[in-house]
Amino acid sequence: MSAGGEHAQVAVIGAGVCGLSCASALAKAGVPVAVFEQARGPGGRMSTRRQTLETGEQLRFDHGAQYFSAKDLAVQALVQEWVAAGVAAPWTPRLGTWEAGKGFVPEEADSKVRYVGVPGMNAICQHLSSQPGVSARLGTAVTGLEWRDGRWLLTGKDGAALGTYAALVVTDKNLASPRFSALNAGLPPPLESAGVPELFARVAAVSSIPSFALMLAFKQPLTQLPFDGLDVRNHKTLVWAGRDSAKPGRLKEPGAPECWVLHSNGDYAKRRVEEGPAGKPSAEWLGEIAEDMLAGFREIVPEMPEPLFARAHRWGGGFPAVAIANPGEACLWDESKRVAACGDYCLGPRVESAILSGLAAANKIFATRELLTLSKAHL
Amino acid sequence: MSAGGEHAQVAVIGAGVCGLSCASALAKAGVPVAVFEQARGPGGRMSTRRQTLETGEQLRFDHGAQYFSAKDLAVQALVQEWVAAGVAAPWTPRLGTWEAGKGFVPEEADSKVRYVGVPGMNAICQHLSSQPGVSARLGTAVTGLEWRDGRWLLTGKDGAALGTYAALVVTDKNLASPRFSALNAGLPPPLESAGVPELFARVAAVSSIPSFALMLAFKQPLTQLPFDGLDVRNHKTLVWAGRDSAKPGRLKEPGAPECWVLHSNGDYAKRRVEEGPAGKPSAEWLGEIAEDMLAGFREIVPEMPEPLFARAHRWGGGFPAVAIANPGEACLWDESKRVAACGDYCLGPRVESAILSGLAAANKIFATRELLTLSKAHL
Repeated sequence: MSAGGEHAQVAVIGAGVCGLSCASALAKAGVPVAVFEQARGPGGRMSTRRQTLETGEQLRFDHGAQYFSAKDLAVQALVQEWVAAGVAAPWTPRLGTWEAGKGFVPEEADSKVRYVGVPGMNAICQHLSSQPGVSARLGTAVTGLEWRDGRWLLTGKDGAALGTYAALVVTDKNLASPRFSALNAGLPPPLESAGVPELFARVAAVSSIPSFALMLAFKQPLTQLPFDGLDVRNHKTLVWAGRDSAKPGRLKEPGAPECWVLHSNGDYAKRRVEEGPAGKPSAEWLGEIAEDMLAGFREIVPEMPEPLFARAHRWGGGFPAVAIANPGEACLWDESKRVAACGDYCLGPRVESAILSGLAAANKIFATRELLTLSKAHL
Repeated sequence: MSAGGEHAQVAVIGAGVCGLSCASALAKAGVPVAVFEQARGPGGRMSTRRQTLETGEQLRFDHGAQYFSAKDLAVQALVQEWVAAGVAAPWTPRLGTWEAGKGFVPEEADSKVRYVGVPGMNAICQHLSSQPGVSARLGTAVTGLEWRDGRWLLTGKDGAALGTYAALVVTDKNLASPRFSALNAGLPPPLESAGVPELFARVAAVSSIPSFALMLAFKQPLTQLPFDGLDVRNHKTLVWAGRDSAKPGRLKEPGAPECWVLHSNGDYAKRRVEEGPAGKPSAEWLGEIAEDMLAGFREIVPEMPEPLFARAHRWGGGFPAVAIANPGEACLWDESKRVAACGDYCLGPRVESAILSGLAAANKIFATRELLTLSKAHL
């Protein structure tokens, strides 16, 4: 926990890049923030999965977002800070597309700058969560939200008191979803009973496209493949295949396995998720998914050797199918109760959209700062 | 001229805080910018006027903006940079109001944070104009704007070529005003013939309230007055009186004169400006204004001693009477010709509004960056 955590004025729920961009912008301006995250680490869909092979070798996979860009100046300024801090770097992959019947077509080089976290995508959220004034409370699910006497009162599992706050930012849309109940022993989604019906209804209406990631490691690099990132079209399971090990700052010891990440397409994932469990997925079921996706990749790359390691991950909340913000709006905001809802579902399913939505929420809260107690150092 | 000036991709006209906020944001993101300013120094209405008395003593007056605040997080982040760079500081003046028939009423202390430039208001624009990638071309009037072969071609007095640029930012609204002709030997306002009729019409329609500043210096501090800043209401000439020397970082040698700045009210200024010259005002005419305003101040402060120094300044362009931006819009933008018009007339007559409008223009231009040649270091 960083300094100032005990006196956090604002609670942010969700330690993905949206929540942490919001929190670190507020903290930089002198507003201490507590960030609650159900998972053990920050990152959300900008996480990096570590796996240790039986041989002791360490593998790392960016199993969520593959790269991101910065079209907005405010985001560009943040990205430059991350690059300067050594937690992000530009990536210039050899890109291509694969389409059934057409095969592989290389993409022309473009002027777009793509960035990744280094040494893994999660480095960015780890960096943001360790900023002064940001107190990351990992492994802490928020199960209750109550507006009482002009403050937000948060409770966790078994009724644990998680503090009171002058303002609240909800980035985890599960807090308005039946998925929350499935993942939390039948508890109702906390935003439903928080007394902000309009905001709840808008977040609850967000539809998502689920997704699976298949993490693959090969003993030898797939040097015969002339791409580092492949957009896959009209394929029965896949939409993306990326050579994770080609990203800057990855472990590249001689003889180290090469890591790849495949993403499923929406139709396949939707069908499998509808058939599958609502709660925690079983290893067996994920194994079936892995087999499907691996078979799909072999269709594209017939000469593919057997991987050393293959594991599927379900992104259940997945990627928003919508962008619900109105023109000129980048987050949802209830002024009377000082609660914002933000995420890539506001502006579109991109890392940059998530950041912009988080910054917009931070700005809404900063405008109420007469109601907050700021760090004296920032006056 | 800073590094990169020869290859500036964007031209900004006007080195006030709007134009320089725009330029420095672009430069920070790797887009080199040339900033053209007719005056000898940057600052616009955030300027500081130096005067040397016959005794050799130096006086400095913030004769334009008196202080500013930051309600927006992006502006707050900039202000924190300025404070860290030593060019801005918070100011906690004793404030009050004076109203005819009621006299002086002290204002309750509030939680609002007010900032000023140090050692003078102009320090902020000087700082911004010396950022890497910003090339300030002072004393350089732009008299012609032509869109030719997808570039903006700028010309100066006597047809001097001022370079070609991929994008253009106009912050000086005189470029769309008959005032331009009055100040430039009858030349037509350059934006009129620039081929952006809609943008021209919107800027040309901006109405302004002129203003006079009276700079006063007293041998002895006016210690008997219990305020550093006074909002004056229902007075025939004045709207503000401020003790400039009370601001942080001002020269405070023992025995140094105390500097004050008074601002005229809009009705008085409008009447005098309508009677007065369209071009450069005469010293005699400004002397009459100074007498009026000094008499007005004596009405408020009957015990006022004779000042050592009194000089009036006309802010002819003055302060916008309108905020012309549409909801969700913070600057005017013509996408097809990559030209932005920005200034405090978009969002309201405040320093913060000028900064936000300039940042919005920078963002519009940054979004076209595939058309720009960026510094390689920023890719």
